[in-house]
Order: sequence, then C-alpha cells, then structure tokens
Amino acid sequence: LNKPPIVLLTDFGDSHYAGQLRGVIATLAPGAVVIDLAHSITPQDIVQGALVLKESVAAFPHGSIFVCVVDPGVGTTRRGLVLLSGGRVFVGPDNGILYPVAGGRADLAVELANEKYFRPVVSNTFHGRDIFSPVAAHLWNGVPVESMGPAVSDIVPLDVPVPVVTEGRIDGRVLYTDRFGNLVTNIDADALSDGEWTVLFKGRRIKGISGTYADRGLGALVALKGSGGRLEIAVSGGSVVERLHVKSPKSFRVRAIKRRG
Amino acid sequence: LNKPPIVLLTDFGDSHYAGQLRGVIATLAPGAVVIDLAHSITPQDIVQGALVLKESVAAFPHGSIFVCVVDPGVGTTRRGLVLLSGGRVFVGPDNGILYPVAGGRADLAVELANEKYFRPVVSNTFHGRDIFSPVAAHLWNGVPVESMGPAVSDIVPLDVPVPVVTEGRIDGRVLYTDRFGNLVTNIDADALSDGEWTVLFKGRRIKGISGTYADRGLGALVALKGSGGRLEIAVSGGSVVERLHVKSPKSFRVRAIKRRG
Amino acid sequence: LNKPPIVLLTDFGDSHYAGQLRGVIATLAPGAVVIDLAHSITPQDIVQGALVLKESVAAFPHGSIFVCVVDPGVGTTRRGLVLLSGGRVFVGPDNGILYPVAGGRADLAVELANEKYFRPVVSNTFHGRDIFSPVAAHLWNGVPVESMGPAVSDIVPLDVPVPVVTEGRIDGRVLYTDRFGNLVTNIDADALSDGEWTVLFKGRRIKGISGTYADRGLGALVALKGSGGRLEIAVSGGSVVERLHVKSPKSFRVRAIKRRG
Repeated sequence: LNKPPIVLLTDFGDSHYAGQLRGVIATLAPGAVVIDLAHSITPQDIVQGALVLKESVAAFPHGSIFVCVVDPGVGTTRRGLVLLSGGRVFVGPDNGILYPVAGGRADLAVELANEKYFRPVVSNTFHGRDIFSPVAAHLWNGVPVESMGPAVSDIVPLDVPVPVVTEGRIDGRVLYTDRFGNLVTNIDADALSDGEWTVLFKGRRIKGISGTYADRGLGALVALKGSGGRLEIAVSGGSVVERLHVKSPKSFRVRAIKRRG
Repeated sequence: LNKPPIVLLTDFGDSHYAGQLRGVIATLAPGAVVIDLAHSITPQDIVQGALVLKESVAAFPHGSIFVCVVDPGVGTTRRGLVLLSGGRVFVGPDNGILYPVAGGRADLAVELANEKYFRPVVSNTFHGRDIFSPVAAHLWNGVPVESMGPAVSDIVPLDVPVPVVTEGRIDGRVLYTDRFGNLVTNIDADALSDGEWTVLFKGRRIKGISGTYADRGLGALVALKGSGGRLEIAVSGGSVVERLHVKSPKSFRVRAIKRRG
Repeated sequence: LNKPPIVLLTDFGDSHYAGQLRGVIATLAPGAVVIDLAHSITPQDIVQGALVLKESVAAFPHGSIFVCVVDPGVGTTRRGLVLLSGGRVFVGPDNGILYPVAGGRADLAVELANEKYFRPVVSNTFHGRDIFSPVAAHLWNGVPVESMGPAVSDIVPLDVPVPVVTEGRIDGRVLYTDRFGNLVTNIDADALSDGEWTVLFKGRRIKGISGTYADRGLGALVALKGSGGRLEIAVSGGSVVERLHVKSPKSFRVRAIKRRG
C-alpha cells in the first residue's frame, strides 16, 4: 500500500536546485513520497557524498530509490547509472558516488541511455533535474531497471583514503567535518575497542576513547565512535572546527596509538 | 483519514542526521507524513530549541507528534521522555527542551525505557535516530504512550533567562538571532504596548516601538513585536547582526524604559 | 486522485519560519502535499526570489499552488495577491516577486482581502504564516480564487536589470550567486550561441563559452549556459565566490563581446 520513497542526496544545499528535483518527481510520479536524506554535502565532494550515502542507507526502507547527485562532471562523457543492490535502487552519475554503497556488489548495473525516460530537453549543467530525477520517477512508477539502458560491469570505483594499520598503530585522516564541527575520520572506531588508545592530531593528544560527547565535561576535546561507526574528534558541547580554527580538514592526519599491554 | 503528522525539530541543519530521522520513520511508519519544523537550532542550544518549539506548536495540527533533538548529553544518564500536553505529543531528551512547551503542564510524562520500541542497536551518540524517531513512529502507529516506560513526575526544568521588570523599566537580554539577523529578546512585546518606550542596547537608543519592519524606512534600526510575541531588534531591510557585527548575541543586555506620563 | 502540491519559496532558510508555514498548511489542508522549492533566497532579495520562481515553475505540476514569501514590506500597506497564470496559482505579497512569472500575463489577479481565509489573529510581521499559507490551504481545499477578494489589474511590476545589447556586445550584470559560488548573470545565454564570444568581468577575460563546467579542466574559470538559461561564470570544480573573494556580487558588471567574423 505504501510504496517505498524516493530519497534525495545532493550537494545542492537548501536551493532551488533541490526544489526542482522535487518538482520533476512530483510531476512524473505524483504519488511518490520524496525524502531528503541531505543536501549538505560539500559542493563537489564525491567522497563525502558516497560515505554519507553508505552510512545512511540502512535507515531507509527496503525498496527505496536513491537519487544521488554530486556531479562536477555533468555534461561531459561520464555516464549515468542505475544500480540495484541490497534491495535498494541507486541513481546517479558514474563518478564513484554510488561505488561504496552498491558498486562492488551490485545485483544489476545499467547505464542510463534510454532518453525516453529523460526530460524532453536535457541541459549540459543539470542532469539531476533532467535525467536522474525523471529516471527515478519512472522507476517508482514501475518501469524496470533494464529498460533504462544496457547493463554495464565496469563502473567507476571511488578512491577513498584508507588508513594504514600496523601493530598497535593506525594512521588515518579526516574525511570531512559535520554540522557540529566534529572531525569525521577514516578510522573504523571498532578497531580501537580493545585496549587503551591515544589519538594524536595537529599536535594534540587525546588519551582514551570516550563513550559519549559529554563524558569528560563541557569543552573537553574527545575522541569517540560517531553515529556512522567512524572515529570522530569532537569538543564536548562545542565545535572542533571553531576551537582549532580548522580550515582544511582533509589535510588533517590522525594517528591512533595503542598502549603496550 | 489524515492522521496528524510527525514533526521534526533539531539542531542537525540540512545534514544526513536529519535525513536519517526521516528514513527511520519512513521505515517504521510508512504512511506517516513527516514535517520539518526546523533544523536550524544553533548546535546544542537547548534554550533556543525549547523557545522555538513553544512559539511554533500552535501552528501544527492537534495530535501532532513532535520529535525534538537538541541533545548535548546524548549517551549519558540523561533520560528520554514522551510528554502529552495540550493534545500534542512530545518526544525528546529530558534536558529541558520539552519543559517550556509541555513540562509544567503535562497530562502525562513517561520515561523512554522500553527498548522494544528502540532500534535494535542503540548508539551512544545518536538517540535521535536510535530512540526518539522510532518511538515517535510507534506512537504514530498507535502504541500507547504508557507502553514506552514508567510515568515520571520530576522532569528537568529549563533555565530561561527572565527579564527583570520594575516600574517603567524592563531589563532583558537577547535570546538568539534569527535567519534575518534580528535579535530576539526575552521581553514580552505586549508589556510595551501601553505608553511610549525607548529601547536601549549596546549604546544604541531606539525611540518607540514600531508596528512593522518597514515603518521607519530602509536601513532604520527598529524595535518591534516579532512573530513569536517577543520584542525584537531589527534593521529594516537589513540585518542587525551584520550592521553591528554581532558575534555573541547572548551577551547583549536590552533595556526598555517607559516615558513618564 | 493526486491533487497538485503546495510549493513553498521563501527567504526563511531552514528555520521555524518555514516550519510554521508547513504547520499551518497541515492544519488547514491535512491531505496536501507540501514541497519546498527553496528557502535559500538571500533575505529580502525580491529580484532573486522572482527569478528563481520563474525559472523553476516549469518543473512543477500543472495546478501547483506556489506560496512565495520574500516580504520586507510585511505589515505595511502593500497588498497580498493571488494570481492565476499558465495553469498554476501564485500567492504572495504585491511587491514584484510574482511579476516575472505571472504578473504580465495573469489570467486572474485578486487582492487578498477576505479575512475569513486568514488566520484568526494576523501579525504585522509574518503574513507568510498568517495570510499566504492559510489562503493557499483554502485554495487547495477548493475555495475559488475569486472568493479571496476583488480582482485587481494594477499589480506592482519588478525592476529587473536588463542587459544593454548592441552590435556584437552585451553589457549585463550579476544577479546573484548560487550554492556553488557561481555568478548568475542577467544575460540570456542563447544570445551567445552564434559566433565566438569573450566574456569580461572584474579585469578577467574568458575566451569562448564552455559547454560544461568541466570542459576546460579543474580550476578553470569558465562562462557557460546555466540550468536556468542564463550566462553563468563558474570555476570548474570550485567556486568563483571563493576564488575571487566576491563580496558584493550584484555590483559586478559583465560584458560579452563577439569576435568579428
């Protein structure tokens, strides 16, 4: 009775670019429920978009159709894709954004080639509105994935920086900052669940992994497991970005060292 | 036929934290209409969240279920609550955010203790997703408030700065700035409806209370009754925050003085 | 079966001002689908609101009811309007915001005078909540446009800066910057489709009109046709606003010169 929603993830902010996606979908699939996952992705940050998508997908219903648009190469020869993976559907550019969530284990990957499911006029600068949203609306209406174009097997992978793990040491980096000014790293927090760890970054030293943001009192610099499972660096009741005047978070290296037992 | 909506109020901004709330609700209560009240609360500003909630609640349908998440103490021993008040339902942390709207006159207050209505895995850092949203979804589905846990009577009050009112003088302060760079004070504007008042702050002097933002011409500094009933300080067609380079609005004291008749 | 949506366009950002519009509509028209076109309009920038509305309207379903609130003159004698144009309905202040999309060719223009369709108490500072949203909800419920008040024919036009076009030369200006830090100009990009053009602004010189943002490689300054049909100035994979430290985009003059054949 309640069909799964269409879910939007973009770097459009709260702008009419996001609004136009909603309008196109409301026009082509008038009964569809449209949910905003986020439009706050840093402009053109494909890695951030891909990781936010991957960590968020489990919160959404089986069958959801995700429209994912972080698309600096719009209008060039980069392809559009629809992927089926884990009972969910992903539509977006073939630039790596869909790779972590679905790319390596897609049940089906199809190139968006059938212009019948695009808007009548396709711009060079806004495929979110002219291709990805209409395709999602038609999929929601029941058009099979296979109708969108030929199957493909060589989708573009994403180069996500991976931490270097050695005995008792993990060398990682900051991936992005979040709404609260927390630094989200590429280190899996569960890797630090055994033993006592110290986290080092930018000349700072945080002893121990906290259980909560508030553990060590207001204003304390803490390292902890964030809601997406990653090691985060935070200020209790505050913002690391503000406290340390962070301007280029991606340049931050983060090292975790385990105390010898 | 149209059940009341679930309404979201958070300090998550336009991020995937808000999106994950929507996803959890769509999963557990697929037919629910979800409305964003606001996600623009200044991070961790419980007072702002509480006052925005209180002034907004009348705009929403009877029976609405509000999920309110400004939660710096997430994961600590602070409790979760569901309150019934004025025909509406409020879910959130027991940190004062629900107190002004419902705390003092709740028809029922229940601690969120029944893990059956949480997500299977509850993180220490995101109860909005793992507890408050699923509880709201189950309430929307018809689970009684009483099923969520034991009734409580000692909910945490909120310390909202109250103006000092003396004969012909009110000493208040700025509570927060809004989207337009207006300063929203803790002074009830109706207290200034009789007689002629002068408003003083930061060495400025505003004679008289304006009826509208535009009353005194473009660029004028004005004091007036805002849409929530509070005394506001504004620049017509502009922003007080920009004009006066306001950085710490909460440190602003505001005094209203009545002209002797 | 699926009635057209109510669409919101404001300068309220992600604040409770937008949330209160949604609440009022949910109260008065519980079955209505409400879509956010955008709330990112620069505060009080009527021209930006009007142009974003005009370029976005085609993405929305026939019959959509648009609530458009950029309203620095709220509470003064400026009128409220409902316009019918192109099979769509527009509600908002009579300050020019509705003029480009509907004003010049409205099938019907009515002044909002019938207080029966307002909220019981109307503030001087928030007609979006107290007049425009309730009117839109009642229209959605089937109340005829004519019931809202008397027909009017003298609606306020909008003064949009028009480029000066001479033989082989177009002198325009920047209208606003978008989410990506692109400069959106008042020059119709199709006017540059013939021949070779050079675009000049702030001492910069861009030879040729690009087909896509990415055409000339990462970091290149490019001029191209944006998704709304206007000439845009962009940095491939970056932001003109950041690159050139743009503070007052509206002061930017942009000149396009055609190479003599």
